[in-house]
Amino acid sequence: MIAAGIDIGSTATKAVIFDGEVRGTAVVPTGWEPREAGLMALRHALAAGGVSEERLERVIGTGYGRISLPIFDRKVTEITCHARGAHHLNGATRTVIDIGGQDSKVIALDAAGGVSDFIMNDKCAAGTGRFLQVMAGILDVTLDGLGELAASAAPAPLSSMCTVFAESEIIGLLAQGVSKGAIAAGILDSIARRVQGLAGRLPLAGVVTFTGGTARNHAICRAIAQRLGVSLHVPREPQLVGALGAALIGRDA
Amino acid sequence: MIAAGIDIGSTATKAVIFDGEVRGTAVVPTGWEPREAGLMALRHALAAGGVSEERLERVIGTGYGRISLPIFDRKVTEITCHARGAHHLNGATRTVIDIGGQDSKVIALDAAGGVSDFIMNDKCAAGTGRFLQVMAGILDVTLDGLGELAASAAPAPLSSMCTVFAESEIIGLLAQGVSKGAIAAGILDSIARRVQGLAGRLPLAGVVTFTGGTARNHAICRAIAQRLGVSLHVPREPQLVGALGAALIGRDA
Ligand code: SF4
Repeated sequence: MIAAGIDIGSTATKAVIFDGEVRGTAVVPTGWEPREAGLMALRHALAAGGVSEERLERVIGTGYGRISLPIFDRKVTEITCHARGAHHLNGATRTVIDIGGQDSKVIALDAAGGVSDFIMNDKCAAGTGRFLQVMAGILDVTLDGLGELAASAAPAPLSSMCTVFAESEIIGLLAQGVSKGAIAAGILDSIARRVQGLAGRLPLAGVVTFTGGTARNHAICRAIAQRLGVSLHVPREPQLVGALGAALIGRDA
Repeated sequence: MIAAGIDIGSTATKAVIFDGEVRGTAVVPTGWEPREAGLMALRHALAAGGVSEERLERVIGTGYGRISLPIFDRKVTEITCHARGAHHLNGATRTVIDIGGQDSKVIALDAAGGVSDFIMNDKCAAGTGRFLQVMAGILDVTLDGLGELAASAAPAPLSSMCTVFAESEIIGLLAQGVSKGAIAAGILDSIARRVQGLAGRLPLAGVVTFTGGTARNHAICRAIAQRLGVSLHVPREPQLVGALGAALIGRDA
């Protein structure tokens, strides 16, 4: 049984081909055409795995763009797919924290990897990948650069949670001569506080798995772990967890 | 008795000299130095009224920057000052809607012009002057230009309340060829919905006075009046209402 999971997010579209193990994966930018991105990610993942399209038995779609693609055998919410994927990678996972390009979520899992509760923010850019993108832009660095800058400095306190107000606040701090390192550390602490705000509404239990592309950034992982007072399990390819979960659901269906 | 009211807002600093009637007024940008802005607004308003500083008997400060200026005889919240100023200009005022550069508030007044209740948003840029500024920037027009664009079009529906997400949404609409007029109308409707959300938590009674610099824009007044289903009283110089209230409080003290 060969199944594909395609996770069409606001920023990146991910595909995983699974036949008992992960055979091929792909990540492409979503851009303005989620439909095209979904098809392209699937083609790339098939090619990466050396699997021909005819052999695919099931295709499961997830992510905000799943509505736009007609090829899916089934569509499943990101919440369910992230839970499933995280549980597969670490069976002791009872909490998933996911920071997406335009949302963030905290999911509570039961012992079987099912969703027992979740909190999602997709209304406010604060606490999402977009916040980090905007802030990195002001400091004129990449996301990785933001982490490097932050590594050696104590965080400058940022009073504005709002992305827009934080932007002005940072411009003011730069004008006052506050170091970019301190500001970068303040930015990471700000997103960590926001995640803390979401996570505080659910019991944090068992292994806490951190998913989404943002989790590749060590400095952000550190900032969140510090605020939550827990250690985080970060999968090797955290951005693929939703697509993996979708593929697993396809295999079992 | 000559009193001055100085309202140091996030964007503009306003001063009013009052001696039974308004003698002089001034509006200057706050910039990075609220203290300097306060002093400059006061000097300009004194000069405009032909009043020498020695004759000033009382100076009352309000607005977020009031903490930074040591010359005040007393500091009073914007809420109290807006209520007082609006009641002076129209004694039937029972509700004040104020859209500031970085906040928005709805104030319920008693018959004497005192504050009976209020709702304030200063955490989120949506629904504030900053939202309009960012949006006008994307369309490459001034605030007035935004109103002109909006005048002749049906609003394009904007699903994102968040300033940051609305920005991307608008870039997407422009790419799809949606007219700037429809987008501008959608932007005004978005801020009106946000004000409606705030106002809905208080009883809207008596005359509803709309204050703050944003109220000078007729298109915004129309959009808000439409959403709230009431007509708005807009003072001739809506941005001076808080400073006027402060001066009145100084005279009576
Ligand atoms: S707080 Fe800022 S980032 Fe959050 S919804 Fe409001 S405008 Fe957007």
